[in-house]
Amino acid sequence: MTEEVKRKLAAVVGPRGFLDRPEDLALYEYDGSVDKARPEMVVFPRSTEEVVELVKIAAKHQVPIVGRGAGTGLSGGAIPRAGGLIIGFARMNRILEIDLENERAVVQPGVVNLDITLAVQGQQYFFAPDPSSQRACTIGGNVAENAGGPHTLAYGVTTNHVLGLELVLPDGEVVWTGGKETDLPGYDLTGLFTGSEGTLALVTKIVVRLMRQPELVKTLLAIYDSVDDCADTVAEITARAITPVAVEMLDGVMLGMVEEATHAGYPKDAAAVLLIELEGLTEAVEEQVEQIRDACLACRAREFRVAKSAEERDLLWKGRKNAFGAVGRVSPTYYVQDGVVPRTEVPGALREIQRVSAKYGLTISNIFHAGDGNLHPIILFDARKPGDLEKAKAAGEEILAYCISVGGSITGEHGVGMEKNEMMDKLFPAETLETIAAFKKLFDPDGRLNPGKLLPTGKGCLEIRQAPLTGSSMLY
Amino acid sequence: MTEEVKRKLAAVVGPRGFLDRPEDLALYEYDGSVDKARPEMVVFPRSTEEVVELVKIAAKHQVPIVGRGAGTGLSGGAIPRAGGLIIGFARMNRILEIDLENERAVVQPGVVNLDITLAVQGQQYFFAPDPSSQRACTIGGNVAENAGGPHTLAYGVTTNHVLGLELVLPDGEVVWTGGKETDLPGYDLTGLFTGSEGTLALVTKIVVRLMRQPELVKTLLAIYDSVDDCADTVAEITARAITPVAVEMLDGVMLGMVEEATHAGYPKDAAAVLLIELEGLTEAVEEQVEQIRDACLACRAREFRVAKSAEERDLLWKGRKNAFGAVGRVSPTYYVQDGVVPRTEVPGALREIQRVSAKYGLTISNIFHAGDGNLHPIILFDARKPGDLEKAKAAGEEILAYCISVGGSITGEHGVGMEKNEMMDKLFPAETLETIAAFKKLFDPDGRLNPGKLLPTGKGCLEIRQAPLTGSSMLY
Repeated sequence: MTEEVKRKLAAVVGPRGFLDRPEDLALYEYDGSVDKARPEMVVFPRSTEEVVELVKIAAKHQVPIVGRGAGTGLSGGAIPRAGGLIIGFARMNRILEIDLENERAVVQPGVVNLDITLAVQGQQYFFAPDPSSQRACTIGGNVAENAGGPHTLAYGVTTNHVLGLELVLPDGEVVWTGGKETDLPGYDLTGLFTGSEGTLALVTKIVVRLMRQPELVKTLLAIYDSVDDCADTVAEITARAITPVAVEMLDGVMLGMVEEATHAGYPKDAAAVLLIELEGLTEAVEEQVEQIRDACLACRAREFRVAKSAEERDLLWKGRKNAFGAVGRVSPTYYVQDGVVPRTEVPGALREIQRVSAKYGLTISNIFHAGDGNLHPIILFDARKPGDLEKAKAAGEEILAYCISVGGSITGEHGVGMEKNEMMDKLFPAETLETIAAFKKLFDPDGRLNPGKLLPTGKGCLEIRQAPLTGSSMLY
Repeated sequence: MTEEVKRKLAAVVGPRGFLDRPEDLALYEYDGSVDKARPEMVVFPRSTEEVVELVKIAAKHQVPIVGRGAGTGLSGGAIPRAGGLIIGFARMNRILEIDLENERAVVQPGVVNLDITLAVQGQQYFFAPDPSSQRACTIGGNVAENAGGPHTLAYGVTTNHVLGLELVLPDGEVVWTGGKETDLPGYDLTGLFTGSEGTLALVTKIVVRLMRQPELVKTLLAIYDSVDDCADTVAEITARAITPVAVEMLDGVMLGMVEEATHAGYPKDAAAVLLIELEGLTEAVEEQVEQIRDACLACRAREFRVAKSAEERDLLWKGRKNAFGAVGRVSPTYYVQDGVVPRTEVPGALREIQRVSAKYGLTISNIFHAGDGNLHPIILFDARKPGDLEKAKAAGEEILAYCISVGGSITGEHGVGMEKNEMMDKLFPAETLETIAAFKKLFDPDGRLNPGKLLPTGKGCLEIRQAPLTGSSMLY
């Protein structure tokens, strides 16, 4: 990017609206994943109009663009792999409209996920998608990655709660898709853009669905001396036709780390626990608590607890949601994976993870959305030890290959990004990837929007691969 | 289509696999809407491979193609507006796989909607989308139109229950999107094709979600002397934070016709009724029945009944689902509309429908999904009376214009088809329609797949419009 282009971009957002000094840019070369790459400039627009101006300048000068929310993503989605411009949405953080009667809100992309719920909880409403990072991550990033969370089991992921989008296309055109009504006619563009990982357009407004708070919430903890018994319980709950809003599993390694860090009341000597949440009408929830107690005890849980107060409940969830922080206290570096297997394959997948752990000599801790079969093995490694990062990545790939082999997927909610784009051809046949690539080309013929993500890069000769990344600003 | 092309197509499906005599083709010029147009040939393939061969021949000779399920659609989606070939899926009607443990089934497009539920109900599972035509309509047509039904309120429409698709593109290429897992990475192509009204590809396999039957179902009938009171009840139920699985409203005109035809037990002298269904755990449902009784009586219902047996329940639903048949007994021809308004606008919309009814001197009867704000005014007219069809269409358009003006939509579940394609530019800005048109062009550059549907046709000069339809086989 030339100095002249930088001056033009800076003029749009004003003197306090951009960063371009190396020491400032260094803060934007990371996200929550293990990769990094430095942008040449970061801008913070305040309106759709400013985004349009920035995008038009970038189009004229062929500058790559990466949108960025809070940078909490786990697949490298916000990393400017080909350098260029980061458009940060930190200043587009207003809730524009709340319509409780029709259960809708219109928000800017920089609004923090939890802030939507905070704005409406006084009126007994909430916004359902709840990534563990929900105190920091933004709705724009949630839309890009189609983020999930522990309560995905009952409520679905972000796409199930997004009804309309205002988008800025790579040429600066503004398009609205969807609206406040569900299932509007025409092709489902809102669904297509949600989860497109910033590769098709920048999202500048989002219409979200709000939900009524349940009458009663119960949080349960089942403690096991065997991981297999714990995994069996998930199948047993399903067999009894109960759908809790969350069924989270933490294994022994994770329990130790979480309890050390948070003192949430988790046992440090157990093989695994299930953290289960039920929501609904009082009578129904109370009956379900008993059914789940039965299911847990039938699967040899050594203890079954019901959180007695909101405080106890919050503490258990704090432990769960801060798990990655707890890991960070123990291991200098770690690598979180995000595989999916059919619910019936969870026990086998856990055994496979143990095998991979032994093979590479790396500790792998498990904390995951068991009800969805969405695994989050956390691979501990030491980046200072030569070859350790490579071993961690190889272990992660092996686990994902297993997920694919049993009919699962390489990501449940973290996205493909630059972490798994080279694995997409193991998950999908060439025709499907070609179709995805055709969409990409339709919107972004120059490949300037979040380059090097989602689809395989130009290592091979297939038509579906993106152009190889070159230039001094490439991944380093 | 030349005789030579017909011979080639016939060779793919064999002597009993096609129709081309005028008297046979006449049966395929209709669907459930008021328009008609005759195909030049109808073929009934038995496999994806046969579909591919047919599509390749059609591509080579530039023959338009329209996919057809049972022809029960209400927006003209299956009508071959530009002549050409109809690919009927009546013989691709097998359920290929049922995987109850993971709650999935894989089916061919010609499977009748209700047959999926019949295949799994012995094991306490069901397929949720339930169009009124579910005893006849096929899952392929449901996918094309993103069909809904009375239980859409709680369970969502077809797109919420379709996880993967096998598709044949207009050039004969076969593509798989999605799979058995939810929310697979990459752009959500499954969501994009679902509801694309047969304009992008032909669907040849569908992976659907199966759901567990609820423990208890209760069906309630609230009877009113005032339509306004009935509409108010819908808002009151929402305000009490109860989501029934269905909230259907029938007005007085409809009640008379339905009761005459079915003897289901509906009152013939009431102004309106609500048919409400609750599902879930016994205790929760029983409590909700009482809350809804309170809400109905607070809104001046003159009577509140709970169906006492499965037979009574089935009879009420039979009345609801056969309503169009009941109308057919009374009026030689009728025109069903499918507008959507925000739930809070239902009372105003009903008053507007009364005004339009008076203006055109046509009886308009209402039967609709009140909980979703999805209106189905049924406009009675006599096709033998000159000008009556035009009046009915004008009345329908006026009602839809009102729906748009209060923030609603022109279709909730019937699709756009050839009925409302000229209204799409009232619902969406030009940029959005251009984006939709760009997708269409990407998949179907020659515009041969279900031509003249969904997007405005070539009456104006806008880029978004489709080429004008010409030729002897055009709409007549």
